[in-house]
Amino acid sequence: MAWIDVTYRLRVPRDEVAAAAQALALEQSVEVPAEVVRDAFIADQIVGRVAETRERADGTHDVTIRLAPATTGYDVAQTVNMLFGNSSLHEHVELVDVAFPADFLARFHGPRHGVDGIRRALRAYDRPLTCAALKPQGLSAQRLAALCETFAANGIDIVKDDHGLADQAYAPFAERVVACQRAVERANAASGRHALYAPSLVGAPRALVTQARIARDAGVGMVLLAPALLGLPAFAEVVAEQLDVPVLAHPALGGATRIAAPLLLGKLFRWLGADAVIYPNVGGRFAYSADTCAAIATAARAPWSHLRAVLPVPAGGLSVERVPEVVRFYGNDVMLLVGGALLAAGDRLPARTREFVELVHRCAQRASEPA
Amino acid sequence: MAWIDVTYRLRVPRDEVAAAAQALALEQSVEVPAEVVRDAFIADQIVGRVAETRERADGTHDVTIRLAPATTGYDVAQTVNMLFGNSSLHEHVELVDVAFPADFLARFHGPRHGVDGIRRALRAYDRPLTCAALKPQGLSAQRLAALCETFAANGIDIVKDDHGLADQAYAPFAERVVACQRAVERANAASGRHALYAPSLVGAPRALVTQARIARDAGVGMVLLAPALLGLPAFAEVVAEQLDVPVLAHPALGGATRIAAPLLLGKLFRWLGADAVIYPNVGGRFAYSADTCAAIATAARAPWSHLRAVLPVPAGGLSVERVPEVVRFYGNDVMLLVGGALLAAGDRLPARTREFVELVHRCAQRASEPA
Repeated sequence: MAWIDVTYRLRVPRDEVAAAAQALALEQSVEVPAEVVRDAFIADQIVGRVAETRERADGTHDVTIRLAPATTGYDVAQTVNMLFGNSSLHEHVELVDVAFPADFLARFHGPRHGVDGIRRALRAYDRPLTCAALKPQGLSAQRLAALCETFAANGIDIVKDDHGLADQAYAPFAERVVACQRAVERANAASGRHALYAPSLVGAPRALVTQARIARDAGVGMVLLAPALLGLPAFAEVVAEQLDVPVLAHPALGGATRIAAPLLLGKLFRWLGADAVIYPNVGGRFAYSADTCAAIATAARAPWSHLRAVLPVPAGGLSVERVPEVVRFYGNDVMLLVGGALLAAGDRLPARTREFVELVHRCAQRASEPA
Repeated sequence: MAWIDVTYRLRVPRDEVAAAAQALALEQSVEVPAEVVRDAFIADQIVGRVAETRERADGTHDVTIRLAPATTGYDVAQTVNMLFGNSSLHEHVELVDVAFPADFLARFHGPRHGVDGIRRALRAYDRPLTCAALKPQGLSAQRLAALCETFAANGIDIVKDDHGLADQAYAPFAERVVACQRAVERANAASGRHALYAPSLVGAPRALVTQARIARDAGVGMVLLAPALLGLPAFAEVVAEQLDVPVLAHPALGGATRIAAPLLLGKLFRWLGADAVIYPNVGGRFAYSADTCAAIATAARAPWSHLRAVLPVPAGGLSVERVPEVVRFYGNDVMLLVGGALLAAGDRLPARTREFVELVHRCAQRASEPA
């Protein structure tokens, strides 16, 4: 039988690692003391087992536990439960990686579009992509739409709602989505480009179904969803059942998890169908390190069974000046999301947007250059 | 206008607190620098503001930020987004409390049964309640049902599925739920008592609807749900729309949040409709302190607008021997959940269950005693 290999980082003294690892294997499988398991099937096929323990330079230990795929029922919620249900309550435990066996992974579709699909939609193949955000919230639908048209008319590839835009009285979802989609269509008709507008869908499952329908009816080409906020199972379901267009994942509520960012934002969001993933870039107003950012991009883009590559979208206080550095760091398969730094230009917004877009295009790496 | 008062704990040097608090107020409202906000409505009605900063004995600071209720759209997902969407990505920020204004809270029903409703269902008014768990997973539906009957026949009030039981091949949901419900009904018919069986519902939103229907059709009197695992919005929706019976909330995935446990498990789960809430008790195999446990129980039971009181369910390695201490700590309005410690009795399970139940009944505090 192929098992699910789950890696946890333990912060316990060295002489407690073996016992903590064994306790973790029981907690994340049968959740009873070993002596309670008297059934041979359960002992052989269900109880988790410690496969490997590695001491790290900082004194923590990475422990790989094997969990039985049958315990997941091949359901997203139950899989997350098996990976980190009770152990999330243990402060000394961090979930850092998971390797699903091929026959488990084959049951999940993963991203429906991925990097290549997004590039095809934009007709942009040989350069990094650009993204801007509609904000602040409190603006009316019409003013958000005007902003959307400005961004698209000045060369932004994807204009997304701020993740704070929901179904608020000052810019109701249906009114905003239609107005912004029409705005991007006007800009495209004038420019001959193929910019996309990505509205933010947020709510309980039934609200998501309604919002997905409104977005579909309006003809939008992409959507923004926050998997950790919606719940990973609800996210996976709305992607699989309600959406045909690419999905841009937002990390809202996803930092507060004690799940390693490359695993959660890179791997798990990809498993569940995200086509692009936003995360706080190194050096911005959040604290992710260069190593963490590189690891997120690797988890998103590296070959992984049949799952399409996902587009990394570094954000979080990115300035126009940092474009060359960011493209050098990630290569071409990246989308740079600049939010507040563009809006701060005030009346110079159109010019500043063009500067950003042109800088990204100029920084594109040629095929002959090293990535 | 009444605002939502949100309290965050900041771990930054004292001379950075004011700037960090101001940044937090912007991040959790408009998500742009203050100078970008040129609109008077947004500046007056939408931008978050720092209301209070208090230094704590350990050198951290509690900062209260006022957020505008209109930004939530009165939606669960968007409210959680406003409370902790982006700031969850800031490692120096912990979400510790929230005070909703009355007109906001009035839009949410909260627990439909609460402590009193659960007591009425059990016909048990003047003593702490008892709970046991069906596990380990890997047992067949018939063997789980036999265990359920043993617990109920020997006086347990609520027999719940282990939260690891889902829709697995070795004990499919529909088969297990019907078998366990019939088992508890047989035990009740023989004993004249009113024990309840609480199956665990876990899955994506559509699966939850199906499972809720199966549970309803089988006549179950309570259900177990893990709000953090399902996603808070999905949890709230299935409670409000699919379930009539009391809801027992499980903390799975809820520890890994950097949201203070009394807020998440006590207050937010109550806001969203939990009637009882399981959490790791002090001194068990998880690390919650006595203060944290007392604060969870307070958040669950204290008067709070129109929201019914929620039953605290301490668990996590609770032993029979600790019953007197636990009842002294919490008083009568508590349900003691003993899991593995009962199952470890093996062939003595019926006798050990009776010892547990009788000890809880003996420890009940009389009305004349101090709580």
